[in-house]
Amino acid sequence: MPKLKLSKLCSGFNENGFAARLEGPDLIVNAVNTLEDAGDGEITFLSNPKYESAVATTKASAVILKDGVPIPEGVSGIRCVDPYAGVTLAIIALHGYRQHPRWGISEGAHIAPTAQIGPDASIAPSATVSAQVTIGDRCVLYPGSFVGEGAKIGHDCVLFPNVVIYDHSVLGNRVTIHAGSVVGQDGLGYAPVDKKWVKIPQVGRTVIEDDVEIGANCAIDRATLGRTTIGAGSKFGNLIVVGHGTTVGPDCLFVGLVGVAGSAKVGRHVTLAGQVGVAGHLSIGDDVTCGGQSGIVGDIEAGSTVRGMPAMPVENWRRSVKALPKLPELLRRVKSLEQEVEELRRKVDTNP
Amino acid sequence: MPKLKLSKLCSGFNENGFAARLEGPDLIVNAVNTLEDAGDGEITFLSNPKYESAVATTKASAVILKDGVPIPEGVSGIRCVDPYAGVTLAIIALHGYRQHPRWGISEGAHIAPTAQIGPDASIAPSATVSAQVTIGDRCVLYPGSFVGEGAKIGHDCVLFPNVVIYDHSVLGNRVTIHAGSVVGQDGLGYAPVDKKWVKIPQVGRTVIEDDVEIGANCAIDRATLGRTTIGAGSKFGNLIVVGHGTTVGPDCLFVGLVGVAGSAKVGRHVTLAGQVGVAGHLSIGDDVTCGGQSGIVGDIEAGSTVRGMPAMPVENWRRSVKALPKLPELLRRVKSLEQEVEELRRKVDTNP
Amino acid sequence: MPKLKLSKLCSGFNENGFAARLEGPDLIVNAVNTLEDAGDGEITFLSNPKYESAVATTKASAVILKDGVPIPEGVSGIRCVDPYAGVTLAIIALHGYRQHPRWGISEGAHIAPTAQIGPDASIAPSATVSAQVTIGDRCVLYPGSFVGEGAKIGHDCVLFPNVVIYDHSVLGNRVTIHAGSVVGQDGLGYAPVDKKWVKIPQVGRTVIEDDVEIGANCAIDRATLGRTTIGAGSKFGNLIVVGHGTTVGPDCLFVGLVGVAGSAKVGRHVTLAGQVGVAGHLSIGDDVTCGGQSGIVGDIEAGSTVRGMPAMPVENWRRSVKALPKLPELLRRVKSLEQEVEELRRKVDTNP
Repeated sequence: MPKLKLSKLCSGFNENGFAARLEGPDLIVNAVNTLEDAGDGEITFLSNPKYESAVATTKASAVILKDGVPIPEGVSGIRCVDPYAGVTLAIIALHGYRQHPRWGISEGAHIAPTAQIGPDASIAPSATVSAQVTIGDRCVLYPGSFVGEGAKIGHDCVLFPNVVIYDHSVLGNRVTIHAGSVVGQDGLGYAPVDKKWVKIPQVGRTVIEDDVEIGANCAIDRATLGRTTIGAGSKFGNLIVVGHGTTVGPDCLFVGLVGVAGSAKVGRHVTLAGQVGVAGHLSIGDDVTCGGQSGIVGDIEAGSTVRGMPAMPVENWRRSVKALPKLPELLRRVKSLEQEVEELRRKVDTNP
Repeated sequence: MPKLKLSKLCSGFNENGFAARLEGPDLIVNAVNTLEDAGDGEITFLSNPKYESAVATTKASAVILKDGVPIPEGVSGIRCVDPYAGVTLAIIALHGYRQHPRWGISEGAHIAPTAQIGPDASIAPSATVSAQVTIGDRCVLYPGSFVGEGAKIGHDCVLFPNVVIYDHSVLGNRVTIHAGSVVGQDGLGYAPVDKKWVKIPQVGRTVIEDDVEIGANCAIDRATLGRTTIGAGSKFGNLIVVGHGTTVGPDCLFVGLVGVAGSAKVGRHVTLAGQVGVAGHLSIGDDVTCGGQSGIVGDIEAGSTVRGMPAMPVENWRRSVKALPKLPELLRRVKSLEQEVEELRRKVDTNP
Repeated sequence: MPKLKLSKLCSGFNENGFAARLEGPDLIVNAVNTLEDAGDGEITFLSNPKYESAVATTKASAVILKDGVPIPEGVSGIRCVDPYAGVTLAIIALHGYRQHPRWGISEGAHIAPTAQIGPDASIAPSATVSAQVTIGDRCVLYPGSFVGEGAKIGHDCVLFPNVVIYDHSVLGNRVTIHAGSVVGQDGLGYAPVDKKWVKIPQVGRTVIEDDVEIGANCAIDRATLGRTTIGAGSKFGNLIVVGHGTTVGPDCLFVGLVGVAGSAKVGRHVTLAGQVGVAGHLSIGDDVTCGGQSGIVGDIEAGSTVRGMPAMPVENWRRSVKALPKLPELLRRVKSLEQEVEELRRKVDTNP
C-alpha cells in the first residue's frame, strides 16, 4: 500500500480542479477510512453534514472537509470545495482499483476453437467462451462466466463470477459486470392466443456501450427485434431488470431493484432511485431524477424530479403524502360541515 | 436464413386463423425487423397505434398491419386482423427459435453414476447432475447449471447457464429456465422462539409443470411441506420470487420483479405486472390482472382488474390517484369552509 | 426416515417448553405433511385459524393443534400451546435438516495453493477457492461457488451452487447462503463529475456474522470504506439487496425483494416484509416491523410497526388507505358545499 504526504494529496485535489488547502502538520497517511473507523495514519472525510458531530471524535490523523467545520486538535485537515471528490481521489491514490487474478487462458476454461481472444486476456477455469465469440484485449472472465455464441466483448471488460452473456450480445470497451448478472436473455415476448402464450422468438440483441458498470444479479433482456441498449457510462446497482427493446441513454444511474419494462426510452443522465418501476413504451427525458419506489406510467419531461406512484413533481408528491394521513379526519370534518350547512339552510329557509 | 415470398407468409397467417391479404408486389423477404431498423428485404409490423407515424418513413420492404393505416409507396403490405400474431408467425417462419449448442454428454460435466439421462440430451461442461436425478430426452443443460439430488426433469427442458435446481424438485416437459434462476431453495421458514429464528427443515418440494418458461435470476421456493407449484404454460419474466407452498395456476404471466409470498393461491391466466407484490395465504381468482407495483393484501375475485396498494378496482385507483394531488388544496378549502360556516352560523344565530 | 410414537413427539414438545398432551391412540407416524396432502401414517398441524375447516377432512393419522378445535374421529391429536413450534419440532424429529453431498476436496475444484481449508470440508467440482482464503471446518461449497482472494469463511458454512463471495469478505460460523447470492460486490459508489460518474474504489468489506441465512439471488454490497455488516442470526429471503456501508442488526427477518440502501443502520430483530425499501443514511430502531412495500425515508423509532410510502404507524396507514378511494367523491362533496355556502351567504347577506 502506498503512503502519501497530505501536501501531495492536497496538490492532487487542486490539479483535478477541486480547490484544496492543508491545515495543520503535513503528515503521512497510508489509508482512507470512515470517520468512525479511521485510526492513526489514516485519513477520513466529511461530506454529508449529518455526520458533522463525528468529526470531533474521529481518531483519524487527517480529515478532508469543507470550510466552517472545526478541525479537532491533533488532526490535520484538508479543506476542499468538494470533500466527496477529494476522498475519491484519496482512495484512488492510496488504495487504487481492484487487481484481478491473472489466469492467462486457463486450461480449465471451455473455449470454442472459433472464438477469438485478444492479447493479455485472463480467462478463469470453468469460464465458457462459445463459438464465434470475440473477446477484446486484457478482458478478465472470472470462473463460471459464460459468453454465448457470436457475442462480442470489447477491450478491458470484466465479467465477475457466473455472469452470463447470451448469444450475439455486444459489449463495448471497459464494461464491468458484477457476479450473477445476465445480459441478453429472452424477454417476456409472447403472443396471446386463446388464453395461452405463444412464444415469439427473440431474435434481437443487447448492446452494452463503453464504460458501463452493472451490479450483481441484474437481467438485461435482448430485444425481440432490433436491440436493447445501455448507453455509454451508465452505472447500475444490483438486481435491476431492463425489458426487451428498451434504450437507456448514457451516464444514467440506476439504484437497486429498479425495473424498466420493454420498448421504453430513457434519456441521458437519468437517475432512477431504488425500486423505481418504469412502464413500457414511454419516454423519460434527459437529466430526470425519479425518487425511490416511483412508478413511471407516462412520459417524463427532461430535467424533472418526480416521485410517487404514479410519479408527479416531487414537491406535489411531498405535499400529497403529507396530507394523506389527514384524509380520514377530513372525511369527518366534511360530514360535519354538511350537517351544519344543512341545519343552517333549514334555519335560513324557515326564517327568511 | 430462409427467404419467403410475402404470399407464402400471408397464407401462413390465414392457415393459423389470422385473416390476412397481400397488398402490393409479392416480394421476397428474409428477416423481420422493427419499423425503425428494418431495411431492404425485411418485413416489419405495426401493432401498437402509438407507432403509426413511423410506418410512413420505414425503409422496410414490407409491413404487416391492420386495415386503415396507409401503406407507403414502394412498400408491400400484409393486412392482417392481428398484426402481433402475424409478426409472431413471420419471426417463427423467417428466424425460428434459438438453436442450442450440442455438447452431447460432455466429459467436463459432473454427472453422478446413479443419474438417468434420456437420449439426445446435451449436458455442457461444468454442469452438475447429482445422484438419483432423472433427465428426460433432448434436454439441454448449459454450463454451470446444477440439478440436485433426486430431482426429476422431463423431456425437452432447457436450463440456461448457472440455473440451479435444488434436490427433489420436479420439472415437467418443455420447461425453459433462463440463466441464474433458482428452483427449490428453502423458503423463509423459521419458528420465532425468544426473539430468535429457529429453522424449520424445508422438506416439501417445487413442481414446475409443462411448458413453463422462467426468466433470469428468479427464485421459486420449495414448500415447507407439500409443494410449491407453477402451473402449466405459465411464463415468468426476470427476478421473480415465489414463496413456499404457493400455487400458481396455468397460463399466468408475471412481469419482472414480482413477489408472491408463501401459501398463496393464484388462479389460471393471471397477469401480474412489474413489481407487483402478493401477500401470503390469500387467493387470486382466474383471469385477474394486477397493474404495476400493486400490493395484493386480500383475496381478489376472478376476472378483476386491480391496481394500487392496497389493490382496488383499476377505475377506482385511477380516480383516487388523480384526486390525490388535489388533497393539500382540499384541506385548505375545507378549513376556509369551516370558517365561513362558523361565521354564517354566528350571523344566523344573532339575527334569527 | 425415522418413525416415532405420538407420545414420544409429545414429550419432545413438553421438554422444549411447549406444553402438550396426547388425545387419542398413541399411533406411530413417519412424516409431517399439510392438512390437505397428509395421508395414513402422517401427522399434520393447524396453526393459522384460516385453515380450521380443513381439519375435519384431513386424511392424516394425527394432528397438532390448540385446544378448542374438534379433532375428527379416527385421528389422534396432540394439543399444544404453540402448534407452529410443535410442528417445527416434529419436522426436525421426523425429517431432519438437509444432508449435503460429500465431495471431500474434489479434484475438479479450483483451489489456490495458499488457501487454508479446515478438516471435513466438502468442496465440489467447479467451486473456486482463491488465494489467501480461509475456509473453516466442515464447510460445504457446492458447484460453481466462488470465494475471492483473502476472504474468510468460518466453520460449518454452506455455500449453495453459484454463490459468489468477493475478495476479503468475512463470514462467521454456521452461515448458509442459497444459490446465486452474491456477497461483497462493489456498491454504487461514484463521484459525480461533469455529469459523468467517476468510480470510487470500493475498498471496504462485507461481514456476515454467525448463524445468518441468506436466500437465493441476493446481493450484499461491500463497503466503500469500513464494512457492511449483517448481524448474527439474521435471516434473509430471496432477491434482497443491501447497500454499501449498511449495518443490519442481529436476528432480523427480511422477506423477498427488500432493498436497503447504503449507510443505513437497521436495529436488532427488525422485520422488513416483502418489497420494502429503505433509503440510505437512516436508522431503524430495534423490534421494528415494516409492512409489505413500505418505503422507509426517515428514521423509525424502536418498537414501531409501520407501513406505507412514506411509512407511517400502521393504524394511520390503514385509515388513510381506506379513506383514499373516497377522495374523488369528497372533492365533489366539498365543491357542492362551497356552492351551498356561497348561496347561503348571499341569502344571509341580502336578508340580514
